[in-house]
Amino acid sequence: MKKISKNPITNKNYVIPKLLDDSENIKYFLSRNNDKPVVLVQGLGFVGAVMSLVCANALNKEYAVIGTDLASESSYWKIASINDGFFPVTSSDPKVNEYYLKAKEKDNFYATYDTFAYQFADIVIVDINLDVQKKSSSDHGLSGFDVDLSGFKSAIKDIGQNCKENVLILIETTVPPGTSKIASEIIESEYLKRGLSFNNVKIGHSYERVMPGPNYIDSIQNFYRVYSGIDEKSANSVEQFLRTIIKTDEYPLTRLGNTNATEISKVLENSYRAMNISFIVEWSRFAEEAGVNLYEVIDAIRMRPTHKNIMLPGIGVGGYCLTKDPLLASWSKQNINGKGFKGLPMSEMAVSTNDKMPTYAFNFLKSQYDDNYLKGKKVQLLGVSYLSGVGDTRHSPVEIFYNELVKSECVIYLHDPYVSYWEEIDINVSQDLDSLNQDIDIVIFTTGHSEYANNQKLIQNLARLDGLLIYDTIGILSDKEIDILQKNHTVKVLGRGDI
Amino acid sequence: MKKISKNPITNKNYVIPKLLDDSENIKYFLSRNNDKPVVLVQGLGFVGAVMSLVCANALNKEYAVIGTDLASESSYWKIASINDGFFPVTSSDPKVNEYYLKAKEKDNFYATYDTFAYQFADIVIVDINLDVQKKSSSDHGLSGFDVDLSGFKSAIKDIGQNCKENVLILIETTVPPGTSKIASEIIESEYLKRGLSFNNVKIGHSYERVMPGPNYIDSIQNFYRVYSGIDEKSANSVEQFLRTIIKTDEYPLTRLGNTNATEISKVLENSYRAMNISFIVEWSRFAEEAGVNLYEVIDAIRMRPTHKNIMLPGIGVGGYCLTKDPLLASWSKQNINGKGFKGLPMSEMAVSTNDKMPTYAFNFLKSQYDDNYLKGKKVQLLGVSYLSGVGDTRHSPVEIFYNELVKSECVIYLHDPYVSYWEEIDINVSQDLDSLNQDIDIVIFTTGHSEYANNQKLIQNLARLDGLLIYDTIGILSDKEIDILQKNHTVKVLGRGDI
Repeated sequence: MKKISKNPITNKNYVIPKLLDDSENIKYFLSRNNDKPVVLVQGLGFVGAVMSLVCANALNKEYAVIGTDLASESSYWKIASINDGFFPVTSSDPKVNEYYLKAKEKDNFYATYDTFAYQFADIVIVDINLDVQKKSSSDHGLSGFDVDLSGFKSAIKDIGQNCKENVLILIETTVPPGTSKIASEIIESEYLKRGLSFNNVKIGHSYERVMPGPNYIDSIQNFYRVYSGIDEKSANSVEQFLRTIIKTDEYPLTRLGNTNATEISKVLENSYRAMNISFIVEWSRFAEEAGVNLYEVIDAIRMRPTHKNIMLPGIGVGGYCLTKDPLLASWSKQNINGKGFKGLPMSEMAVSTNDKMPTYAFNFLKSQYDDNYLKGKKVQLLGVSYLSGVGDTRHSPVEIFYNELVKSECVIYLHDPYVSYWEEIDINVSQDLDSLNQDIDIVIFTTGHSEYANNQKLIQNLARLDGLLIYDTIGILSDKEIDILQKNHTVKVLGRGDI
Repeated sequence: MKKISKNPITNKNYVIPKLLDDSENIKYFLSRNNDKPVVLVQGLGFVGAVMSLVCANALNKEYAVIGTDLASESSYWKIASINDGFFPVTSSDPKVNEYYLKAKEKDNFYATYDTFAYQFADIVIVDINLDVQKKSSSDHGLSGFDVDLSGFKSAIKDIGQNCKENVLILIETTVPPGTSKIASEIIESEYLKRGLSFNNVKIGHSYERVMPGPNYIDSIQNFYRVYSGIDEKSANSVEQFLRTIIKTDEYPLTRLGNTNATEISKVLENSYRAMNISFIVEWSRFAEEAGVNLYEVIDAIRMRPTHKNIMLPGIGVGGYCLTKDPLLASWSKQNINGKGFKGLPMSEMAVSTNDKMPTYAFNFLKSQYDDNYLKGKKVQLLGVSYLSGVGDTRHSPVEIFYNELVKSECVIYLHDPYVSYWEEIDINVSQDLDSLNQDIDIVIFTTGHSEYANNQKLIQNLARLDGLLIYDTIGILSDKEIDILQKNHTVKVLGRGDI
């Protein structure tokens, strides 16, 4: 039986080859690029795919770029799509497609599943995913978690078993701090087995600060970078490479003392945000109980320069990083750098608190009514992605909220200006805000897209409907809009107390 | 027997009068200021005393200012000193004494213990302290806490029993949110008992953002203010008053919806800082275990505008606010706004984590040696105040650290450029950095005063001594300074891993 891997964006099916040998294609690609250093990007996910484009369109160097991923049902389509003319990541950043087309035109970007390619790599960039296995309680609070390094280690082993002696290996994956050192040991041991010298292998760690959205490419190419190496020659080599793909004159590089430092820096950045959100979550509950509009309080506090980064509450925290990076750190603290060390309780509590947010938001809605009231109600969700201005639905808090509505037997209508197909739920999403269903009972603002803010037409359309419940989980409605809507509707805003 | 109250700054003793009647003096003071509205400031602590000065030197209004406090051993000296020509708060801000002298010259500032003064007040400003009673475990982590409102309520009762019908009462004390409403009920009930109308009483809440230090006065007069009232006329009245003492054209006022909102805003501001510190504390431990210099990591992270407010680790959190305000909030959430609500676990954990910092810092020092090594060692502490550039020793983390050194039978030498007498320990502090004891074993940087940073002479002096242990708990030493000191000494820095 044929194994199929489907591109969820184009719906095109690709047959996974039985005989996993792509060597001829790789050789032919390299023959067309035979004077260029070869960059091999391991992992074609949200970061790796775009990183490949940035390398294929380097600032002051011509690379031959080979993207690799697994020939699995969930990943093979990325490889096939890249070679077939469709970039596997949709983005509101026009530069993404522009860079892809340029690379295709220059013919310096090829994708493969075959580790045969590794032997030609001058630079390997590790961008594979490393997930946390969470155990959650019924309110989605954290009841435990684990980190499985085996997939990551196996990818690193591929490098050690196939690469040449003077390769630069740049790990960009967000890892539990200490992992680059483990990777280095694996690679060294594989080189020794092959009778090769490890002396000229350079290994470094550097993390991107990729933001999906309208500045996707710029968030790699035009942003500050932190890097390190397992030794000085490695760090120098990483620096030399980064200078070819990042505008380092405007965004200077920062070298840190060792790979543990850059690894900690990455997860600390994301943990800092996760913690600041979770902190405000408890105050949001407090504000509701005390009849206080937390949004106006935070506006007042932000006038202090020392308090500008204070966050706003909302329906939840999503995306790939903030939901797991604090746990990677806590796991590392307990398991890598030394046995017997304690974890990071505040950082773990941050994840747990944030994970509970969508369930809380749903329960808040439910508490406005008698039991069973929600059954059969027609509910319009405005926004399904986890972040304003972005079509990224990975770990979107709206998913948990949506599932609760399904359990309550609501009829759900979805809208998101950036999402036409919601992969995690396998459902289509409307992108037409002007023709919302006229027959709805509840409208819920779930993502803070700018299309929903200060939108007079939307407010007028909603005001015209009969006796809606309007539930703003993210504080996007202005006082004036609430005044207009309250004439005919009930308006509830998370973190605002009674209006 | 005579009861004495001693001014700890001048060492002058004041006899507390037996007959607590100051009415003649009050009448005489008012007769000398008989055309001016009377501002009565309740509480002559760090905030109330300076607030009195700001009112006595209002921007565009002439007030007669009466400061009040209790005729107790711990407070009477403040009253007596003010009338005697000595301002009861020492400050590095030259404006403090300047404003005090101006007020004395204008003769519009008087202090008393006698509630007889209340009946003349047009404006009462409540600046009395409200403390948290903490229970701590042996590492100073929080094992429980309570809030006792009785002292506060009794002061509010004084207002209700003595003030006139059209008074403005402005509560500035940091209180558990909900307290202004409680105060309002107490005052109304006392007015009713006296057969007076409560209709014209205005009650509001506004918090200062006082920073002890070189900008003490400016932190009141030239800074953003948040305020509210129990009703609109109250809020208007507060606004009118604040416009006379604050440069509101440069620092616009922010009115919030109700007194709960401003009360929450105040404790949220301080809890935000406390939480950001405690968060970095756990990462500081992580960095030590992983051999990472957290200071360079944080420098790298701060390049992101969204991460500018990330804090640095240190020896601990001190002062009057950050050590208790998160607890006031959590207490209120559980006890005032509704019974049965949960507290604020992250905010409580923040206080507990921060409270443990000095004990951790001491244990880190101890762990460098064998048991009993510290006994008899000569230890020089650089800095005793809780904050750089400031002589404020209230709740200084150095106090706990000092007490641990005492327990270990160290011989301790103290230096602080801003503190000559350490009230909490009852001990003198040297202010002469050039003549440190030459016979010391351990030098510990405990406060980040600018006098210790980039001080070549200090580093040279230290470098010259024999085989010191230099312990930097706050990361004040630069890499270059560490290099110099390491030639002859062992250098340890909290949060830096092995150097």
